[in-house]
Amino acid sequence: MKKIIYKPIGIIHTPFKATKGMPNQPTAGKNVEGFIEIQPEYIEGLSELEGFPHLILIYHFHLSVGYTLRVKPFMHDHLRGVFATRSPRRPNPIGMSVVRLTRVKEGRIYIKDLDITDGTPLLDIKPYIPDDRQKVERIGWLSQRAKHIRKKSVLRSTNTQHDKEE
Amino acid sequence: MKKIIYKPIGIIHTPFKATKGMPNQPTAGKNVEGFIEIQPEYIEGLSELEGFPHLILIYHFHLSVGYTLRVKPFMHDHLRGVFATRSPRRPNPIGMSVVRLTRVKEGRIYIKDLDITDGTPLLDIKPYIPDDRQKVERIGWLSQRAKHIRKKSVLRSTNTQHDKEE
Repeated sequence: MKKIIYKPIGIIHTPFKATKGMPNQPTAGKNVEGFIEIQPEYIEGLSELEGFPHLILIYHFHLSVGYTLRVKPFMHDHLRGVFATRSPRRPNPIGMSVVRLTRVKEGRIYIKDLDITDGTPLLDIKPYIPDDRQKVERIGWLSQRAKHIRKKSVLRSTNTQHDKEE
Repeated sequence: MKKIIYKPIGIIHTPFKATKGMPNQPTAGKNVEGFIEIQPEYIEGLSELEGFPHLILIYHFHLSVGYTLRVKPFMHDHLRGVFATRSPRRPNPIGMSVVRLTRVKEGRIYIKDLDITDGTPLLDIKPYIPDDRQKVERIGWLSQRAKHIRKKSVLRSTNTQHDKEE
């Protein structure tokens, strides 16, 4: 199939440095603050963004190298199909996060609730709208988690690039 | 910035043919059925996907040509920053939809609640997890819609490729 070429519109800055083997964050994400530096040529496109409490960020997992079609998520024993996980090691290493918008000022977008590695290239920003909100009746294999691990931690950890993946 | 290259993992098939000037769908999306044909080499990655009621699809707006940083959404009078809309004409024409998963069978993923043009190249599939569900307190400029237009219609129409955008 035909290749598709994109160009980053900015860089996401967060406190999560891309260090292999760093301790897993038990409360990763919630309230963590950072900002996006938008490339000057795209700043005009941010107009009226501030009216939305949440944004969808679509970004490139720049540290992800290669992929396997079955992955063993952090703290889980079984292999799962990569598309049933949020692992960064996927055929197209695209990440998606819903973050809280704090403020937009001079090409900087201040955001909260981050679980994204520092220096990540941003591809797109979309406003979070009611259609994006769905009832979550089941969470597939995630419900089989080890009973002593907090659900939140396991869910979050499927989305970070610094997770250990065996 | 460095270019990023992706390769489609499959094609999304829907009843929405890409015809310019087709009537705007007032109830577009809800209950509309379609399927994704996954490329044979990625089928193994679909394992255990069926446990999730909703999927996040990330795809390429293949019919979108060029962009402007301010767009006039369908049925709205004012120009808005492109990142505050779901317009397909964006710097990186990436689409994101949350769809209902019906069934996975032999490399075909049957889905519902579609608002995607037929033939759209798919880049990634992710399970929809509780972290993706956010309270929507405000919907920015969308709340200033003409009073006789149903909210749902306006919201949906910001995401389709066959919308008229002046």
